[in-house]
Amino acid sequence: MDIKVYVLEKAMDAKEGARALAKASSKQKNLVLLKMAEALKNRAKELISENKKDIKFAEKKGISKALIDRLTLNEKRINEMSQGLIEVAGLPDPVGEITKMWQRPNGMTVGRMRVPIGIIGIIYESRPNVTADAAGLCLKAGNAVLLRGGSEAINSNKAIVNVLRDVAKKHGLHEGAVTFIDIPDREAIMEMLKLEGIVDLIIPRGGEGLIRFVTENSRIPVLKHYKGVCHVFVDRDADLKMAEEICFNAKVQRPGTCNAMETMLVDKKIAKSFLTNMIRRFKEAGVRLKGCHFTRKIDSSLEKAQEEDFYKEYLDLMLNVKIVGDIDDAMAHIAKYSSSHSDAIVTRNYDKAMRFLKEVDSSAVFVNASTRLNDGFQFGLGAEIGISTDKIHARGPMGLEELTCTKFIVFGNGQLRE
Amino acid sequence: MDIKVYVLEKAMDAKEGARALAKASSKQKNLVLLKMAEALKNRAKELISENKKDIKFAEKKGISKALIDRLTLNEKRINEMSQGLIEVAGLPDPVGEITKMWQRPNGMTVGRMRVPIGIIGIIYESRPNVTADAAGLCLKAGNAVLLRGGSEAINSNKAIVNVLRDVAKKHGLHEGAVTFIDIPDREAIMEMLKLEGIVDLIIPRGGEGLIRFVTENSRIPVLKHYKGVCHVFVDRDADLKMAEEICFNAKVQRPGTCNAMETMLVDKKIAKSFLTNMIRRFKEAGVRLKGCHFTRKIDSSLEKAQEEDFYKEYLDLMLNVKIVGDIDDAMAHIAKYSSSHSDAIVTRNYDKAMRFLKEVDSSAVFVNASTRLNDGFQFGLGAEIGISTDKIHARGPMGLEELTCTKFIVFGNGQLRE
Repeated sequence: MDIKVYVLEKAMDAKEGARALAKASSKQKNLVLLKMAEALKNRAKELISENKKDIKFAEKKGISKALIDRLTLNEKRINEMSQGLIEVAGLPDPVGEITKMWQRPNGMTVGRMRVPIGIIGIIYESRPNVTADAAGLCLKAGNAVLLRGGSEAINSNKAIVNVLRDVAKKHGLHEGAVTFIDIPDREAIMEMLKLEGIVDLIIPRGGEGLIRFVTENSRIPVLKHYKGVCHVFVDRDADLKMAEEICFNAKVQRPGTCNAMETMLVDKKIAKSFLTNMIRRFKEAGVRLKGCHFTRKIDSSLEKAQEEDFYKEYLDLMLNVKIVGDIDDAMAHIAKYSSSHSDAIVTRNYDKAMRFLKEVDSSAVFVNASTRLNDGFQFGLGAEIGISTDKIHARGPMGLEELTCTKFIVFGNGQLRE
Repeated sequence: MDIKVYVLEKAMDAKEGARALAKASSKQKNLVLLKMAEALKNRAKELISENKKDIKFAEKKGISKALIDRLTLNEKRINEMSQGLIEVAGLPDPVGEITKMWQRPNGMTVGRMRVPIGIIGIIYESRPNVTADAAGLCLKAGNAVLLRGGSEAINSNKAIVNVLRDVAKKHGLHEGAVTFIDIPDREAIMEMLKLEGIVDLIIPRGGEGLIRFVTENSRIPVLKHYKGVCHVFVDRDADLKMAEEICFNAKVQRPGTCNAMETMLVDKKIAKSFLTNMIRRFKEAGVRLKGCHFTRKIDSSLEKAQEEDFYKEYLDLMLNVKIVGDIDDAMAHIAKYSSSHSDAIVTRNYDKAMRFLKEVDSSAVFVNASTRLNDGFQFGLGAEIGISTDKIHARGPMGLEELTCTKFIVFGNGQLRE
């Protein structure tokens, strides 16, 4: 089979789906989402049996238990996928919203209307739930989705897509709204990335290798999520008890996430009083600590933090601790080492709070709150298709709005260009 | 000289400029813009003498008169550049604006704040005025600009950049705010396009060849402007006199622009009464007309429009005329042939006006107004760095807002992730 032709055919199918979706009413889209949710539960047996094929193959290949767990579909997970679609159905439809409207001196009224982007390509790795989640969000925002999942989950993904397509078709929506490329070859990704003018946006979801590959080869705009090297700065004017709770939460509550703290910056003026208890608490929670020169003067049991450690996304119970002279020092460290994902200050000083908010250039900047709150649900976006570390189009958690664009609309009564 | 190293050094200079600009107040940025405007006029002689070198070289190479005209700097044009900077200084500063703010159930307040993008790379061709225009807009929005102009204008561009940098430096802004790559080689563009993580956005301004080259080779997000194949649909319920004025304006007022009409679609019910006068008027204005089968039944003097003509951006006094059955026919034609730039309907029918606005997917959709009005100044954006035909980040005319992004800001009082 010619992969180029195959991928193009899939994209043309998605294009039909996108046309149908752009015209669909909120009512119709919501109905389809609810019916999809129902069908996933009704056809759970079929999904689990297809998933078993993937698991059997993964076990043969000797894949790690953790990865097999991520790959596994059971009734609970299918219910979660189903529930996800029900929640998306309940969210307000972003399409058709007029975000602004104003009148010009010549009498014409100009506005910006939110419209679907068109076709969104999602390139992802092992978790099969991404298939339903991404399809649901794209559908609600009026976009067709062109999915390319990992080879490990290919049978599970195909089964989920079949369920979703059957529902779309049955309820009068072109089934191209949910399209799946079932060629595990990387060449299929390469062909997808050349479809500029047909596919409007690519969202890769997976490890750094995948994201780098996509960015380097795509002619289509890419929204991506690189690593999160996040900081909490404990200012001399902080409520130290609050600072302790925030730092502990930012590191320990779920260390494997992108918005977990990797380096704690502590103002020298309060370092001793703050660190004594904080270090004890981290140690009790099993956090491995690496300290700067000054930190190790306070507690010599800490390992020495190396320059390169400050660039690392540990995604684990590990933490760098660095003592800084003041807020300027702290912000200079963040400007140099942060991945511009999530950074926080703990302080009771108004001026420093406002300076930090304004001057730190990250997707989310916090005063007196945990970096772990950088999340679409926590921020109230209602859903999340990822957290963008890009600055173009979307930055930070991406909800339904970020899956749309706007067009200008003009109500005239005969206006001409003079 | 190693081009890779040279370009990277320039980018690092721009990075310093971006840092300084991100912290600059509106007052400081406006002062610098006004001083730049003054300096361009004061040093007009120097600019004109450098420009003469470019012109001499162009004449030697036998370049067309039209291109030499585009390249030429004289006092009038320098005054225009200067005036452009003064106008940008007068616009509201988009940076720091809080676009939304809301409270979450846990008591934290979440908002979106407009911030500079960082470093914007502008790759452009012959007109030297782009140098000052682009630098001014980027500076106002808090971005450093990394300019790479065409080889034909290299002496003029360098001279303009020197003036702007001198002013920036003199007024306490890092001169890296305006950075110029003075290597005419395409390899310099290639190296620019690899600077992902340093340069945040690329805007190519020039012909289709340049734009395609940039899109295919960039690892950095690109905002681009492809061609404008624009339509006016004259509905059976149109005010025919208004329709005639709008169509005439859309084609004739300035045919060489991207928002000029290339195909006029006419409802069959009013085709005969409308076209008789309209065709006469176009012919008097020297417009070469190509008609569909049915149009040529009304006026056999028209050339026959070929299928491929409907995809063409004439940028000239040429026009396709096609008779369609109804609004559905018209919108189907637009969906197939339009470049999604600017499309208009002329009608007095409310339902059809609203359907056209909603269903036609173009950067600007007009009811009863000329497509020629798709423009940043006409829409009241105050300035324009181009018209994006992309759907990601910016669509349609791009003003200062489109040269910014947003970050999330959070005011908390101890919120944790549960």
